[in-house]
Formats: sequence, C-alpha cells, structure tokens
Amino acid sequence: MLENVKYLMRPENGEEKVRLKAEQEKLGELQMKIKEHKLPVLVLFEGWGSSGKGTLIGEVIHNIDPRFFKVSTLKMPTEEEKRYPFLQRYFANIPEAGKFVFFDSGWMDEVTREVLNGKLDEKDYKKRIDSIRRFERSLTDNGYLVLKFFMHISEKEQKKRLDALEDERDTAWRVGKYDRWQNRHYEDCTEVFEKYFEDTFLPSSPWYIVDAKSKKWAELQILEIMNQAIETALQNSAMSVPIPQNMFPLEKALPLAEIPLEGKELSEEEYKEKLDALQAELKDLHNRLYRKKIPVIIAYEGWDAAGKGGNIKRVTESLDPRGFEVHPIASPEPHEKARHFLWRFWTRLPKTGHIAIYDRTWYGRVMVERLEGFCSENDWKRAYNEINEFEKELSDWGAVIIKFWVQIDKDTQLARFTDRQNTPEKQWKITDEDWRNREKWDQYEKAVDEMIAKTSTVYAPWHILESVDKKYARIKALTIIVDELKKRCGD
Amino acid sequence: MLENVKYLMRPENGEEKVRLKAEQEKLGELQMKIKEHKLPVLVLFEGWGSSGKGTLIGEVIHNIDPRFFKVSTLKMPTEEEKRYPFLQRYFANIPEAGKFVFFDSGWMDEVTREVLNGKLDEKDYKKRIDSIRRFERSLTDNGYLVLKFFMHISEKEQKKRLDALEDERDTAWRVGKYDRWQNRHYEDCTEVFEKYFEDTFLPSSPWYIVDAKSKKWAELQILEIMNQAIETALQNSAMSVPIPQNMFPLEKALPLAEIPLEGKELSEEEYKEKLDALQAELKDLHNRLYRKKIPVIIAYEGWDAAGKGGNIKRVTESLDPRGFEVHPIASPEPHEKARHFLWRFWTRLPKTGHIAIYDRTWYGRVMVERLEGFCSENDWKRAYNEINEFEKELSDWGAVIIKFWVQIDKDTQLARFTDRQNTPEKQWKITDEDWRNREKWDQYEKAVDEMIAKTSTVYAPWHILESVDKKYARIKALTIIVDELKKRCGD
Repeated sequence: MLENVKYLMRPENGEEKVRLKAEQEKLGELQMKIKEHKLPVLVLFEGWGSSGKGTLIGEVIHNIDPRFFKVSTLKMPTEEEKRYPFLQRYFANIPEAGKFVFFDSGWMDEVTREVLNGKLDEKDYKKRIDSIRRFERSLTDNGYLVLKFFMHISEKEQKKRLDALEDERDTAWRVGKYDRWQNRHYEDCTEVFEKYFEDTFLPSSPWYIVDAKSKKWAELQILEIMNQAIETALQNSAMSVPIPQNMFPLEKALPLAEIPLEGKELSEEEYKEKLDALQAELKDLHNRLYRKKIPVIIAYEGWDAAGKGGNIKRVTESLDPRGFEVHPIASPEPHEKARHFLWRFWTRLPKTGHIAIYDRTWYGRVMVERLEGFCSENDWKRAYNEINEFEKELSDWGAVIIKFWVQIDKDTQLARFTDRQNTPEKQWKITDEDWRNREKWDQYEKAVDEMIAKTSTVYAPWHILESVDKKYARIKALTIIVDELKKRCGD
Repeated sequence: MLENVKYLMRPENGEEKVRLKAEQEKLGELQMKIKEHKLPVLVLFEGWGSSGKGTLIGEVIHNIDPRFFKVSTLKMPTEEEKRYPFLQRYFANIPEAGKFVFFDSGWMDEVTREVLNGKLDEKDYKKRIDSIRRFERSLTDNGYLVLKFFMHISEKEQKKRLDALEDERDTAWRVGKYDRWQNRHYEDCTEVFEKYFEDTFLPSSPWYIVDAKSKKWAELQILEIMNQAIETALQNSAMSVPIPQNMFPLEKALPLAEIPLEGKELSEEEYKEKLDALQAELKDLHNRLYRKKIPVIIAYEGWDAAGKGGNIKRVTESLDPRGFEVHPIASPEPHEKARHFLWRFWTRLPKTGHIAIYDRTWYGRVMVERLEGFCSENDWKRAYNEINEFEKELSDWGAVIIKFWVQIDKDTQLARFTDRQNTPEKQWKITDEDWRNREKWDQYEKAVDEMIAKTSTVYAPWHILESVDKKYARIKALTIIVDELKKRCGD
C-alpha cells in the first residue's frame, strides 16, 4: 500500500499557496459548525519517525481556537499504564462533543512497535486488531469523526532528517533509538505498516497516506481531507447507523417474571455462619488475586430499594481497603455526557490485582437512558453490542467480570419505600425520582428482560440475586464471587 | 513525643467491647450528618511499617456506606508523578463535600522517608514542612476536617509482625525493604518522626498518636477521636476563620484607572515584523525549557472581549503542540464545586518542561465568585493569601509564572460586543452573561484593583496588556514571555 498509494500530484507553488489559504480559512469556519453541531473529532497522526507529525499538527491547529482542541502525546505505556487494558489510555483521551483531539501517534504506533520488537505474536496481534476495529467503529457509530493519517517519507528522506536533527543540541533529543532503528529496518517496517493498514481499514474510518516530503504540501493534503470529512460528518450527523448483530456466545436467561422468589430466605443463624465463612474465604482470595495481578469487576444493577447498598457492604467488609474501590454511578456530569457513554467507565477501571465494584453501571444506557429518552432509539439498540464488546475487552484483558441483578417484587419495594419514608435516618435514601421510576415498573421490567437476554455472554453472564430476604441475596452474592475468584486464582 | 505521649489506659475487655460498639454506631449516624452538612473529611493514617494501618482503615470503613468514602493508597512517587509539585497528587485526592477520604500513609511518609534516606537536606525539608502546613491549613480554612493519626508500635512488636507476615506466601509481599530498614533503624526513625510531629502540629489539624499494639484498642481510640472531631466540625461549620496576613513580598501595582491606554498601538508592519521575530525566539525557548524541564504557567484574565483568545493564539502558534496545553476555564462542574476551589487547577498543572496556558484562572474566586456571591465573604477575602501560597508552591517547584490582565476601556468593549452581535461568525462569542457582567463594570474594576494589589507578588507579578489595539497587546505579551523564559533558560 505504501508503495502503491497514488498520491495526488503536488500543485505548482502558486496554486498550492492559494489552495492552502482557502483550506485554512475553511477549517476556521468549520470549527464553529463543529461546536454548534457538537461533533467530536478525533484525528490520529501516525507516520515514520521524523516525518513531521508534531510540526504538521502545529500547522493544522493554527486554524482552530485553542479552546476547541487538545493534543494528546502518548508515549509507549509506562508500568502503571500497563496495569490497564491496552485501549484504556486512548479511550480516556477521546474528544468531547464539539471539540478536536489530535493524537501525535497512537495505537498504530504502539501495536506496530510491539510487532517489530517481537513482543506481540500473531495471535495477540489479531486480538489487538479486533480491539482497535471495535474501538474505532464504536466511536464512529456514536457520532465521532475519526480521521487517520499516516505521514509517509522515503528511507533516504528519513535518514536526512534524523541526521539534521542530531546535529543541533536543542533538537537532538527528538531523535529516539526507535527512529534510527526504523531507518535501518525500513523495509521490515514497511511490511508491518502495510499489513496494519489493511487490517484496520474501516469504511467509517479509512486510512489516508500523506506524502510528507514537503511540509506545505502535506499540510494541504491533510486540510483538504479533514475539511471534506468534517463536511460529510456534519451532513450525516442526524443519520442512524446499522445495528451490528451480536457476535458473542450467549447463555440462556430467564425473564424476571419466571424467577421464583418464594422460599429464598435464610435464618439469622445460617446467615451469620455462612457470612463469616465466605468473608474469610474472600479475604484470602483477595490476597491471592492481588499477588496474581487479576483485575476484578463487580457490577450491581437492580430495582430501587432491592438492597444493593447492603449487599455491597457485606462484600467489601472482608476486603483490604487498599485493594478495592466502590464507584457509585449517578447521572453523568456535563463533561461525561459530552463523551461516548462508556467513557466514564473506561476511566474508572481497576488496576490489575484490584477490585472495582459499581453501584449501578454502564447498563444505565439500556434502562434509564432508554426509558427517559436520554439517548436515541438507535443509540440504545446499538448499546447491547457495544456493551458486550466492552466487557469482551475487559475479559480478554484478564478481568473476572461478575454482574448482579438484585431482584425483588413490586410489593416488597413498596414496603421498603414506605419504611424509608417513615424512618428519619433512612429518608435520604428515598427521592421523588424513586417513586416516579416505580410507576414505570412494567416498562423497566421489559427493558431489563431484554438487557439480560442480550448481554448474558458466556464470559460475563448475569447472576440474579433474589433479595426479598436480603440475607439470602448477600450470601448468594458472596458465594458467586468466591466461586468465580476460585476458578481464576486456583485453590 | 512518641516516648512521652500519654495514652489513655486501655479499658477492660468488657468495657472495650461496649464502647467500641457505641462508637461504631455513632460513626454510622454521623456519616449522614456529614452528607447533609456537606462536610469533607480527610483522614490520614500514618504509622510504623506493619502497624496495621490498612487493617484499621478496613475496620473503620465498615461503619460507612461505600458510596461515602474512598481509600487513597499512594506509594512513593513514580517518575511521572515526580514531574509535578510534591503536593500535587495529594491535592488531587482530597475528598469532596460530604465524603471521606482515607489516606493509607501520605505526605508524612513521603517526607520522612526522604529525610531518612538522605535525599532531603535541611533546607528542602523546611520547604516541605512549609508546604504541608499551608496545605493542611488551607484545607481546614476551607471547611475540611483533617484528621492525622500515627499508629505507634514498639521495635519489638514491629519485628514480631514482620516475621509473621514473611512466613506466609500470600502476605510476604506486604513486607517491603523499607519496613525492615525501619526496624533496624528504629531509633533514627523515631527521631525523624518526632521532629515531623512537632513541625506539623497545627491547632486545626493536630496529631493523634495511637497505641496500635492491639487492633481493637487502636480502633476504639481512632473512632473516639474521629467521632468527637466530626461533631466539633459540624458545630463549627458555619464559623468563619481568621484571614491570614499576607506573608509574601509584593510589587507595587497601579489601579486600572491609572493605566494609560492611548498611544499603545502598532502599525501593521511593525506588528508583523515583531511577531515573526518573537515567535521564532519563543520557538527556540520552548525547545530549551523542554530540555531543561522547566514548567511554565501563563494565566490570562481580562475584560470580556479584551482579546484574550487572539492573544493566546499568537503565543501558541509558535509552540510545539506536544509541549503545551490551553485550559479554558468555565464555571466549575459539580464534582469540581464539591472540592477546594484550587482543586481543579492542581489537577490541571503542566508537567516539568511543559507550558500550561489558562484562559481565565483561579482568580475567578476573587472576581466572579466574589461578585455573584458564589462564595462567602470570608472565603474570597481569604483567597488572596491562598492564591499567593498556591503560586508560591508552583514557584518553589521551579515554575515560571506569568500572569496577564488584558485591559481595555468600557467604550472599546461596547464596540466589540456590538460587532460580535452583528457578525454571524462571531455571535457564539457573545452571551447574555457578557452583557450582565458589563453592567457591573465598576464593581469588577474595584475587585480587579484589589486583586492586583494583593497578588502582585515578586515571584508572580501581574502584567497589564493594554489591548485597545490588540496587536500592541499581543506583542507585549510575547515580549514578556520571551524575556521571562530567557531569564530562566539562560541565553
């Protein structure tokens, strides 16, 4: 592809100047439309070492108000960053609605480098490619414009530039070992890059190879492509996208109405005995998973007043506070709402060896956001698959994923609401919104049934916690957690 | 102090149990009051290696709903963290209103370790102590409850515990090199710790030395102190605190009315010529400060429509996009408003070698927040000193701090507002709020005069940019930036 790409002919000097000026002005105008239409624009600059990525980003952003863009310069991951999934730091840096983020090299650089230095075998490479394709598609599906540029220069040109940089004291630091290595292994690199282009060429986020020998000409190519792509994206902003078919093996799941609740109870004695035993076991397992660096994700959903809080408390009581975190999930704040709906979860993941517990989760997308109209129908229908992909990413990373639906019947909820209302210390727990949600019980039940049916993947199935007797639900939760952790930590 | 501290007598077993249960229940009740009164509670657990800090935090949090606390376990700073001021990562982890944060060791551990391993000489130690005292005082002044516990065990007890931990495979990783070192140098450590207690014993955040030999007894001591301190803090929540006198040398500053604006203008030719020269110089300096790892902070304040945006643009045009960031500062989001007003700036600092430009700043506290009543009179009156301390921290860290007030007269503002209103591409820049602010011009001018008079410290003075002719203001800004950077980077 690098060999065969047919660049446009570079225009004459005079024409180039005129066209460049026109495109610069156009970008200046388009930034206002981007803001107005709340279009998030992610621009990835990849390319050969010393091909001028930084300089070209510098040129492009001259046309944009500094309030509307950020430049993200992620180097190879640090030890700390390696304790999160591969995509985490990229997801954390996606733009918000109406703004640009420019990545000065990104996931292509990371993956191809790992291939070139032999750290990524074919199987793992394939996994990375799957992750990247899903990542980019999920962004474009959610209304992001994703632009991928590769700055191409010849072996000879690269050598010339590296030599020139190294001659100057203030620029010598810019030449890294890998740049020199690339130049000595130009053909190997070419092969790996070309394969990567093929593997990650998506209709909604294609690759653009830029002839980067001349700065001005490179800038013109980039601006012409950017401006055209932005105009297309603005026109398409109201369009819906196809809803991908589920690709992951599912487990059979019962509708809530068919789950028996009667008889699911424990005596006080049984409860205490089991609680002590399970908490002691969990404590040991926590040490072990810390040592083995296994990340654990425990997600709680359920009816209001079903007993999520008390259930979580019984789990955390036996955990070392240095190794877990509880994330209460409320409605998103403005900076969260301005990004992909999974952004606030990508930025709240546990490190390897740690446990993250979510009190409400990413499933809000297909429950409250669906029912309250906080997102479009196309959005929530697409979300089942996006969530399955998200959890697949976490599972591939090595996480244990445990998802609980805490189940009660409508009468039990009423009794607990009334109790909360009448008990001063509990009043903070009950709000008008709870009562409003209760009125929509049937709609919610339908949504929950659909959610459980569509997201009970084999790698992250739902577990129902029957919670009319809270003691029963707590013991069941602890039993499941202990079993799942044992499977992963060995005995 | 460790020798002399008079512990309370440990109660008999039966009494201990009763008192413990009472305190646990009390904390459970108090957490609701904390939420209601929006009291932020920071609890620092310091202590000897293996004194049971983690376990005790684990016990204490059993009484608190997981939604209301976080546990922060900062190890010694990583290379990345070392690129920020010492206090940055602690400030970033302070609690929000109505919640607890428990620090499992913190700034005491970091500083005393550095003293013990000889990395901190007396002068630098003194600096750290000053920073810590200001940090804690600024938190308590802003309504935080700061509780500092030290878990004390004897040399013999420590040795016993370390041996026991190392015997078990799942707990051996808990024993670090430093723990063993501490035990071998118990007396040296005692001396350093005692000095630290004295140096950081503040009336509003005193030290509590806890007899940590028995877990239950330690828990009881902690809970009794915590509960009492919380009750006191709740009673005091409406109290104002004394306003500290300014301790930093100030430069003389003129009131805005006395700053001549006439004749501060440049011809198009002069402008172009100077702009090119200054931008080229700045570009070189940017490389140099990157190499020398000097952080740079450029703060812009000024009247609406004074030309801040265009001014910033002329500065950033010559900078490498990988080495700077522009932070537009709007009104705080809920999670920002819930913390100390400087939190959102502590979390937006540049790394060493980078430039951060703020389009509006922490001075909002003494302008818009003062005039719109978003904080109390006591709050904004205290803020001058808090800001001077904040900037002192940054200056001591090695940052170049450049603060601009972009100045125009009232008529110029009216002309620009009208122009914005009448030009479709500019309409996004003008809002109803701008017009409302304009009506309060005189009040703002008074507030700005007071702000400039009280915060023009010698290490971070204000620079006035006369901006009736925007070209003049841009050249002046660039000239000042180039001069300041030259002073620091050498020629």
